[in-house]
Amino acid sequence: MTILETMARSAKIAERTLGIAGTEEKNQALLAIASCLMERCQEILEANEQDLEAARADGMSDSLLDRLALTEERVEGIVEGVRQVAALPDPIGEVTKMSKMPNGLIIGKRRVPLGVIGIIYEARPNVTVDAAALCLKSGNVVVLRGGKEAIHSNTALVSIMRDALEQAGLPRDCICFVHDTSRTVANEMMTLSDYIDVLIPRGGAGLIQTVVENAKMPVIQTGVGNCHVYVDGEANLQIAAEIIYNAKCSRPSVCNAAETLLVARGVAKEFLPMAKQFLDQKQVELRGCYATREILGDTVKHATKSDYYTEFGDYILAIKLVAGVEEAIQFINRHGTGHSECIVTDNYFTAQKFLNEVDAAAVYVNASTRFTDGFEFGLGAEIGISTQKMHARGPMGLEELTSSKYIIYGEGQIRK
Amino acid sequence: MTILETMARSAKIAERTLGIAGTEEKNQALLAIASCLMERCQEILEANEQDLEAARADGMSDSLLDRLALTEERVEGIVEGVRQVAALPDPIGEVTKMSKMPNGLIIGKRRVPLGVIGIIYEARPNVTVDAAALCLKSGNVVVLRGGKEAIHSNTALVSIMRDALEQAGLPRDCICFVHDTSRTVANEMMTLSDYIDVLIPRGGAGLIQTVVENAKMPVIQTGVGNCHVYVDGEANLQIAAEIIYNAKCSRPSVCNAAETLLVARGVAKEFLPMAKQFLDQKQVELRGCYATREILGDTVKHATKSDYYTEFGDYILAIKLVAGVEEAIQFINRHGTGHSECIVTDNYFTAQKFLNEVDAAAVYVNASTRFTDGFEFGLGAEIGISTQKMHARGPMGLEELTSSKYIIYGEGQIRK
Repeated sequence: MTILETMARSAKIAERTLGIAGTEEKNQALLAIASCLMERCQEILEANEQDLEAARADGMSDSLLDRLALTEERVEGIVEGVRQVAALPDPIGEVTKMSKMPNGLIIGKRRVPLGVIGIIYEARPNVTVDAAALCLKSGNVVVLRGGKEAIHSNTALVSIMRDALEQAGLPRDCICFVHDTSRTVANEMMTLSDYIDVLIPRGGAGLIQTVVENAKMPVIQTGVGNCHVYVDGEANLQIAAEIIYNAKCSRPSVCNAAETLLVARGVAKEFLPMAKQFLDQKQVELRGCYATREILGDTVKHATKSDYYTEFGDYILAIKLVAGVEEAIQFINRHGTGHSECIVTDNYFTAQKFLNEVDAAAVYVNASTRFTDGFEFGLGAEIGISTQKMHARGPMGLEELTSSKYIIYGEGQIRK
Repeated sequence: MTILETMARSAKIAERTLGIAGTEEKNQALLAIASCLMERCQEILEANEQDLEAARADGMSDSLLDRLALTEERVEGIVEGVRQVAALPDPIGEVTKMSKMPNGLIIGKRRVPLGVIGIIYEARPNVTVDAAALCLKSGNVVVLRGGKEAIHSNTALVSIMRDALEQAGLPRDCICFVHDTSRTVANEMMTLSDYIDVLIPRGGAGLIQTVVENAKMPVIQTGVGNCHVYVDGEANLQIAAEIIYNAKCSRPSVCNAAETLLVARGVAKEFLPMAKQFLDQKQVELRGCYATREILGDTVKHATKSDYYTEFGDYILAIKLVAGVEEAIQFINRHGTGHSECIVTDNYFTAQKFLNEVDAAAVYVNASTRFTDGFEFGLGAEIGISTQKMHARGPMGLEELTSSKYIIYGEGQIRK
């Protein structure tokens, strides 16, 4: 039995204790985690410094270094997140649809944990704590496998959290951590369907694709967002310009940022220069279709086919003119990743058509795509945004980390 | 592009029309299917006769021949099923959790179809119509791939249903059928994740395993049931004997039938002979542990380790004595398939412990495991019983064939 298999087996054993732990017990553990992380902040920062040194020596870019870096303030933010999760209602144990059947059986659907959740992620150490807290609250054992860039930070964070679990009287193995960051071990993790009930990859498109294709257990696909804003022929153009600017520029690296602007031909001449004025504030690189360049001129680059399939994650925006809502819907359903899509229009029927026919996790009328996340949607927390249609779609909070079991109370009933 | 890929693409195109079809339209199509199947019953029976002849020539067993055979009465039953699906409420379009956020956004969760559902199944032609009707009602396009034994029956059934769709004004491609029953084409189907959103295998453990391991899209695992009845030390033994008899013998080939009987040592001497008397009525072959054979004698075969992992699907029952509920729970969680599990006990706390700690889709107290199905649970219809924890667990009706999308009504909101 490999090291990983032994660990996954311990996770499965811890599952039984955690699955039936009460809300009070889980909250105590979360608060213990929060206190221990705060108390041992120095230990975390020292470990993080080791990661940062190695990353600098490796020539990591500034923006990635920034994602990796922890400060006392950031640790405080992470700890505050854990306290918030403790304050959320416990989803486990809720019984829905309980009713008495004609034969006297009382049948109800009880919310239960999924079991053991594997999380494969990249360089951000905050994911280590966020994911562990959400899994713990929802009664799930977590097996964390972070990127090699954050190995020292993650090791410190996990070891503190496991000490806190023990202090709170729960098994240390409720939070498991894969120390070996090699690809071989990640691949092995994807085969352990006897012990790991579901895998959630968090990171770039390449990582997610690998997990989806290779995992033997169910996977929750998260995050890839090739999002569109469609400005209709009957749009309020001032609102439209503000929305595309917000959707593109407020945080270009995140999955709910817009990547392509679609504009109805009828308003393109008036709208495109307005939009450009906004986007120029951030020097957004525009890549347009032929008709776009006729209006905005040669400063706009020519958009290739593949641009329309790309999640730039940067200050780059593809633009395409379309005949109207019908062509916009078809374009979005072909090029989009089913994440967040927006129409700007004053027309009631056009808005309803767009809501009905666009196939995505979140479809907006007259609002920025940037709102797609668990906090903005009122879920209180978020483990990721599902872009698949099974199990969960859109922002996933605690409920999305649960399954159900039917419980049936009988009095000796047999089936005829 | 292969024949299958071309078909899957047509299915994806039909999805858009069917996904936004109204309840009236879908019900009209279902009623047209019911009428056409009835009118052209003779055509179905002739095609079925071809399948039966081939199967007989092939030496198919009587019980399998019986599953394959259609009669006028059986066709009537199938048609009645379609009418019942038409009468069920339409799950699509329901909006839940709609609320106004502090920033004025109105966010709701709307129930939408999954898209294109692939069904890979074996020799039962009734599945062809049942599955098509459930998918149609829930707004999903279906791609059916049945077994080669039923190819003539299935071809006739599908061609009639497609004619009915056309008559009702919906695209014929709402119901697609894979004529090629080779394994190569089944394998190809598992790779078409661009067109098929989810695969549901229906059949034996081997088929399900193959699909789970090879499919590139999400799979809903159905049906394998290694179910237990545990007779506690404080059980009403008369009720216990009736339940194990019903759970084993009322229909041994189905997935909710019991395969193993666990008995608390304290009542084994009294209970086992009682149970045997019931089970002898159907000449059930008993395979027991050492302690069981000490009580019931050598007519009981010795149970091997693998017997406890086997879904016999026949008049065979494995028996094991256990110390009490704790050992029973551990045994079930190790050997079971997470389908249906039952405890017979008079003790309130023992019952609650079993309900809490057994990890299965349906957990029973004092009632036969045979009740696990969509009709008995009040879902009105059933496409299968999920034994996985993701998306759906337990009997799956129309709601379980749906996903959701968030719809957001804004008035120009942008994110700070």
